[in-house]
Amino acid sequence: MSLLLDNQFAELPADKSVDTKTFLDNVSTLPPFFDCLGSKVFSVIKSDINGNITKIRAVYDQDPAKYVTLQDIVEAERETHKGQWPKVGATLALMWLKRGLRFIQVLLQSLADGDRDENNPNLIQVNITKAYEHALKKYHGWIVQKIFSAALFAAPYRSNFLKALSKGQEVKDEDCLANVRLFLVNYTPTVDAIYEMYSNLNAELDYTV
Amino acid sequence: MSLLLDNQFAELPADKSVDTKTFLDNVSTLPPFFDCLGSKVFSVIKSDINGNITKIRAVYDQDPAKYVTLQDIVEAERETHKGQWPKVGATLALMWLKRGLRFIQVLLQSLADGDRDENNPNLIQVNITKAYEHALKKYHGWIVQKIFSAALFAAPYRSNFLKALSKGQEVKDEDCLANVRLFLVNYTPTVDAIYEMYSNLNAELDYTV
Ligand SMILES: CCCCCCCCCCCCC/C=C/[C@@H](O)[C@H](CO[C@@H]1O[C@H](CO)[C@H](O)[C@H](OS(=O)(=O)O)[C@H]1O)NC(=O)CCCCCCCCCCC
Ligand SMILES: CCCCCCCCCCCCC/C=C/[C@@H](O)[C@H](CO[C@@H]1O[C@H](CO)[C@H](O)[C@H](OS(=O)(=O)O)[C@H]1O)NC(=O)CCCCCCCCCCC
Repeated sequence: MSLLLDNQFAELPADKSVDTKTFLDNVSTLPPFFDCLGSKVFSVIKSDINGNITKIRAVYDQDPAKYVTLQDIVEAERETHKGQWPKVGATLALMWLKRGLRFIQVLLQSLADGDRDENNPNLIQVNITKAYEHALKKYHGWIVQKIFSAALFAAPYRSNFLKALSKGQEVKDEDCLANVRLFLVNYTPTVDAIYEMYSNLNAELDYTV
Repeated sequence: MSLLLDNQFAELPADKSVDTKTFLDNVSTLPPFFDCLGSKVFSVIKSDINGNITKIRAVYDQDPAKYVTLQDIVEAERETHKGQWPKVGATLALMWLKRGLRFIQVLLQSLADGDRDENNPNLIQVNITKAYEHALKKYHGWIVQKIFSAALFAAPYRSNFLKALSKGQEVKDEDCLANVRLFLVNYTPTVDAIYEMYSNLNAELDYTV
């Protein structure tokens, strides 16, 4: 019924470790999220994120028993790649992936919180911009920032976006937002946990593209 | 020595048919052309074009004896896909690929012809814009056109671009442009022949993305 609830993220254990297999299965359901934005322009972003997921999965598949948690992968790569790490392998892919995940999280949270441009209540530019500033802007040079500004014109109406999230069904906005809130219950702590891990392991980089 | 001459396009036969295998081999050397533009921004375009090539090659590989020329593929798909054709399969991939090839051709020709912004002789924005207007603009909606305008800021200096085409070697601009002209001798008629085929078979579409 809802794109997001069909495959809800798993609850985190007390030690906040993220199970690799479960994470990959859950996160693979998110790229269609970008189709909900309606325009072909966003397929570029979808493939970037799909690329990240493929890269992480390829490492996991090499040795599932060794890479039980995401942290197992990042730590193993720190050993193997020494000088190049963390700008390498699944560590790099997850570094960028988590930013895309944060973008989605802040966008959904902002919609759930009812943030709105009162003059244009059916536009979501204000929510997308909030998410972009929070998750990505600092990692983008001025040209990509300009491209973002242009792409913003392709954003869908709020009503159409919510409808797409409900897989095209005519549900009330409030019901859709209730689903969004439910989705965020496990999703947000998962994204937070990955950020925390990158910070703890000193794996975060702030170069711009 | 020169990116373009390492794998020059083959001369066309009198009937202007394009040999599929030779074409695919030649055209596969072109995506690195977009690396010569210097910025990561253009990797999006590189993957779009790589995607086109992969799609055409996949069809060819199914039956090389049947698909000797590009026209063999397009005609076979016209039979197989009826209602959806030409917005389908390798026909669609080649439709877009030829536009990217035309873009490259007009850009190189414009450089070879010495088109320049006299006030900024080391910028190639004027050449890129000419190529874009000729090959792609009409197939892009206003948002992608705006994205193009933003991406234009990422264009390299003329001198750096020519150097990259010469694989980083310090050759004189004139020597590099002589290589460009040599490359265009077979390249331009190949691109022309594909356009002519699409026109003859009524396979061209003008929807925008
Ligand atoms: C013909 C005219 C066209 C001209 C050309 C125009 C081209 C325009 C391209 C603009 C950029 C598109 C977005 C992609 C940006 C990507 O460059 C970045 C970094 O991407 C990372 O880079 C790493 C190396 O540094 C590795 O390769 C990573 O890959 S690895 O797996 O190999 O390690 C890869 O993800 N990802 C990002 O910034 C992530 C973006 C996430 C989602 C953002 C949501 C935004 C929604 C916006 C809504 C309005
Ligand atoms: C975080 C912020 C980021 C926000 C998001 C920004 C996203 C920006 C994306 C901008 C568009 C990038 C260019 C790609 C455009 C593509 O959409 C088009 C059509 O692409 C075709 O579409 C078909 C279906 O209609 C099939 O899928 C084809 O695929 S199929 O093989 O499956 O059949 C596919 O090639 N190709 C094009 O227009 C071709 C472009 C060719 C080269 C152009 C050279 C320009 C150089 C410019 C120099 C300054």
